[in-house]
Amino acid sequence: MQFHAIGTIRTPYLTEAPYQPVREDKGEFKIILNEDLVSGLQGLEKFHYIYVIYYLDRVPTGPPLTLVNPPWAEDVQVGLFASRAPHRPNPIGVSIVALKKIDHNILYTSGLDVYDQTPLLDIKPYIQDLDSKQDANLGWLNFNNREDREHLLLHIKGKPH
Amino acid sequence: MQFHAIGTIRTPYLTEAPYQPVREDKGEFKIILNEDLVSGLQGLEKFHYIYVIYYLDRVPTGPPLTLVNPPWAEDVQVGLFASRAPHRPNPIGVSIVALKKIDHNILYTSGLDVYDQTPLLDIKPYIQDLDSKQDANLGWLNFNNREDREHLLLHIKGKPH
Repeated sequence: MQFHAIGTIRTPYLTEAPYQPVREDKGEFKIILNEDLVSGLQGLEKFHYIYVIYYLDRVPTGPPLTLVNPPWAEDVQVGLFASRAPHRPNPIGVSIVALKKIDHNILYTSGLDVYDQTPLLDIKPYIQDLDSKQDANLGWLNFNNREDREHLLLHIKGKPH
Repeated sequence: MQFHAIGTIRTPYLTEAPYQPVREDKGEFKIILNEDLVSGLQGLEKFHYIYVIYYLDRVPTGPPLTLVNPPWAEDVQVGLFASRAPHRPNPIGVSIVALKKIDHNILYTSGLDVYDQTPLLDIKPYIQDLDSKQDANLGWLNFNNREDREHLLLHIKGKPH
């Protein structure tokens, strides 16, 4: 299966990026779609949120580990597929961000948790009735037995603190 | 960018699949993860919902169109990136499904909107506070000027009717 970049994501993050998209993040976040695909954006401006799908191009070489430690809770070990760790068998990232404005082939968004110049693979609309699951949960991230639960949740939500 | 299958999705759909995941869909839906990755599932069973990311391997050949007509509203034309049409520059599908049970390397889920034997690319946890956007909308799918709005919304939500 061969995939190719259809654009580039621009963020302020050159050497370190947040673990999650930060809604109130400072700086400019934009997606530059290849010019020949610009008509594919028609109607997208009506959505509040979009999925940004990208290639995680700056992860370590070598096969990923199937068990990982979240960087903000190194005493916890979970399976790779129960985490959003970037070093995965197929390094595909998915972020949900607010869409602020579309200017021709440039999409301005809320904070994106990726390095500058990350290759774009796809954009899809986030559709309220399909994607916003009211009965979703936090899984192992609930941490209801830990004293530092509130602090960990700030990390999980990507909230500055 | 080269990606590879890390498992297979099994569904009842051989020649026709729903346009969206149907929560109450009948039949067996399961994801068979490659045996060598099974420890990567540790902790995933705690989540109510998961993202299933897969390769759309049965779309027409040739370059995708940037403007598409939804199959349930052929008089509507929208941009490819404002739709979930499967024929995309990078044929990556993302579905959110309820996780019912994990049995070793087999994940049993609610209805998946893919053909039987679709190649699996990734699994990620759906995390309530990050992914369930209360202020999301329906975008152009709102159709508030159309008399057949309620009928169209059933299609959008993948509800049998």
